[in-house]
Amino acid sequence: MENHKNFLTTAPYKGTRDFYPDEMRLRNWMFSVMRETVLSFGYEEYDGPILESFDLYKAKSGEEIVERQLYDFIDKGERRVAIRPEMTPTLARMVAGNLRNLPRPVRWFSVPNLWRYEQPGKGRLREHWQLNVDLFGVDSFRAELEILLIADSILKRFGAPEGSYQIRVSHRKLLDSFLKNSLKLNADQIHGVSKLLDKKSKISAEAFESEIKPFLDDAAKQIPLIETFLGSDLRSVSDIPGIDPESVSFIRNLFGELQALGVEKQLTFDPSIIRGFDYYTGCIFEVFDTNPENRRSLYGGGRYDNLIGLFSKEQLSGIGFGLGDVTLKNFLEGHGLIPNLSREKTVFLPIMEESLFLDTFKLSKELRENGILAETMLDSAKIGKQIQTAEKKGYRFVLFLGESEIRTDTVQIKDLVSGEQKSLPRKGLAEILKKDFQL
Amino acid sequence: MENHKNFLTTAPYKGTRDFYPDEMRLRNWMFSVMRETVLSFGYEEYDGPILESFDLYKAKSGEEIVERQLYDFIDKGERRVAIRPEMTPTLARMVAGNLRNLPRPVRWFSVPNLWRYEQPGKGRLREHWQLNVDLFGVDSFRAELEILLIADSILKRFGAPEGSYQIRVSHRKLLDSFLKNSLKLNADQIHGVSKLLDKKSKISAEAFESEIKPFLDDAAKQIPLIETFLGSDLRSVSDIPGIDPESVSFIRNLFGELQALGVEKQLTFDPSIIRGFDYYTGCIFEVFDTNPENRRSLYGGGRYDNLIGLFSKEQLSGIGFGLGDVTLKNFLEGHGLIPNLSREKTVFLPIMEESLFLDTFKLSKELRENGILAETMLDSAKIGKQIQTAEKKGYRFVLFLGESEIRTDTVQIKDLVSGEQKSLPRKGLAEILKKDFQL
Repeated sequence: MENHKNFLTTAPYKGTRDFYPDEMRLRNWMFSVMRETVLSFGYEEYDGPILESFDLYKAKSGEEIVERQLYDFIDKGERRVAIRPEMTPTLARMVAGNLRNLPRPVRWFSVPNLWRYEQPGKGRLREHWQLNVDLFGVDSFRAELEILLIADSILKRFGAPEGSYQIRVSHRKLLDSFLKNSLKLNADQIHGVSKLLDKKSKISAEAFESEIKPFLDDAAKQIPLIETFLGSDLRSVSDIPGIDPESVSFIRNLFGELQALGVEKQLTFDPSIIRGFDYYTGCIFEVFDTNPENRRSLYGGGRYDNLIGLFSKEQLSGIGFGLGDVTLKNFLEGHGLIPNLSREKTVFLPIMEESLFLDTFKLSKELRENGILAETMLDSAKIGKQIQTAEKKGYRFVLFLGESEIRTDTVQIKDLVSGEQKSLPRKGLAEILKKDFQL
Repeated sequence: MENHKNFLTTAPYKGTRDFYPDEMRLRNWMFSVMRETVLSFGYEEYDGPILESFDLYKAKSGEEIVERQLYDFIDKGERRVAIRPEMTPTLARMVAGNLRNLPRPVRWFSVPNLWRYEQPGKGRLREHWQLNVDLFGVDSFRAELEILLIADSILKRFGAPEGSYQIRVSHRKLLDSFLKNSLKLNADQIHGVSKLLDKKSKISAEAFESEIKPFLDDAAKQIPLIETFLGSDLRSVSDIPGIDPESVSFIRNLFGELQALGVEKQLTFDPSIIRGFDYYTGCIFEVFDTNPENRRSLYGGGRYDNLIGLFSKEQLSGIGFGLGDVTLKNFLEGHGLIPNLSREKTVFLPIMEESLFLDTFKLSKELRENGILAETMLDSAKIGKQIQTAEKKGYRFVLFLGESEIRTDTVQIKDLVSGEQKSLPRKGLAEILKKDFQL
């Protein structure tokens, strides 16, 4: 019967990843660098359930997410639920639910896994993790100042060299005022042109021109004006008639203080960034990888002024960003920033003779109780094979406890890198390992 | 229009929890103690996607899970998928998928969130987290030895006092041999009686008797024999005719070595434990909370010999256990083992005057770059209010940087606990804070 058995596949669900210990170490390392950075700014971690009511996303997330990318279904109690495709709706629900008790500014972060039904590709999977950093209760550009400093500090803490990334900043009201006042478009035209601008970098110049024409009244004049706007810098953008002057001075003030804080070379004004989400209302930014083989947005965010409006009459201005693990990993790999993440495992104890098992196991217990990571073999294979196991598992040191060591109250330690072997007293062994072997 | 708006609820989905920063700190603390313990034994962390193919659970999980508790649905590509209700099927799939490359013994752990459609109650939620610890490739009772030592070490590391918990051990083949050889039941009878034994502690003695009778041929003789079996100790159980002698000596050897390792008082043989899962084939155990108000199984596990049989012709014996965060939290609370988890946040910087913002922000940046957690206000409210914010946020120290401090190149530090305030030099401030204030 066993011969005809159909085995199940060992592959994970399409578009997802298994994290074997090597990959898990990398993920843990990436998350710990991100966590350390945001914790150092006084941010506190939160989390919510991965299932939320479908209504939350219907109300809050963009059309594309809800209609095409959402993992939603009816539960056994007839509730329509969805696996979170982004963290912001959960964040908004939680902040609104405890608004009166949260001392401001509220500084929160989370590292949730998120799900979207997508065609998997480079940098795009169905399940990914994302650092979410948000700050609430500050209306001035100092909120942007701090958030951009965090965005910058994270990459610096990963060791990103100057020039490896660029922080592009704009303001939602710049584009709004340009479309409404400079181009004098109506609401339908604005909707169509915005969508096209968002995908401009992904299509050819010809395709862009032919697709935008139907939304314009006087394409021959308006298209050059669009190019002027998209190519403008912080000086020239003010010269375009109808541009919102407050947004321009907001960004100027922000840039002035960021420069005083040493964030200058990687900073650039870029009116072409759009950010797909509907809820941004103010300053928006994107961090770009400058690696020619991975020229893409690493992460981005912005200000949203009406985040909790779905839950409450209160107003609370917030700003935040999300940084995904897949794009970050591509960035780190591209710039050679992933260190040798050897295991932090240090001492491996083979079983020299079957009769010595309990002695060996007791020694490993004693070491652990004194803060040394110690893994023991559980049977006495040939000693060469046991050392191979230690090597495969990535250990640096092997401790031997044989008959003669037991008689003399010692252990032998072998350094698998240098090949050196020497005898150490059993008494006070943990202290010796910590002091002389930096374990 | 806004007046008639229907606000969305801020409550999370039924049976789940929001982790506000206070709860998140508790969760992170619990996980870090569990992680430290298993890492010290040389275990490595892994993870898999939260969605798996429905077939995986259909083949591997118990009937109750698949039919009544699974969150399963059809995805947009017509695949039937399910949110993981337990980690073992994912673990089996991953181990089977890389069997040849994994050095043995394989020692793995994970802390996944798991979903079951249940009626929420004390210690039972729809989403919970669970430490999973598994060891593969060791057939002898030394695998049990290590796993039980880990189970014990985790609670010890949480500070659990002697007598606060009990480790109850049995063997699947003891019960099997009892039902088959001692009671001489057929397969259908065994199935029915096993199920009843599993729920015996939750029903009255009368209900048990009346429900078991239909499965017995000679209840008057067999019920007392069942009571004898369930009440037996490691000596008397051998006297019951038909009991598997190998299981008895397996447990005796295990207990002998565990006693030599100092795990004795909390250890007990208990033939009444069953463990609902179908895949256990050898030694099984449960850790019980002895708190009279929370007398329940904290966690449990056992040996499964055919875990990867669904994926491969290979054989691999494994043993593992799962420890859920909800039951663990109840245990820790019941025994007063949760410490004061004050934030690790230490320095808060108010803005003394609007004109001094950039100086203050620069100081906080400098402190962070030297390893001090520093949170800054972003606007200059009344100073008393800013100190209140620091207190509410749980800070111990406040740093003041006013005009006179800038002139004299100093800062004022105030200890919010003692009320003391003093002047410190600005130069080398981070080092002084680390040395004199243990920050």
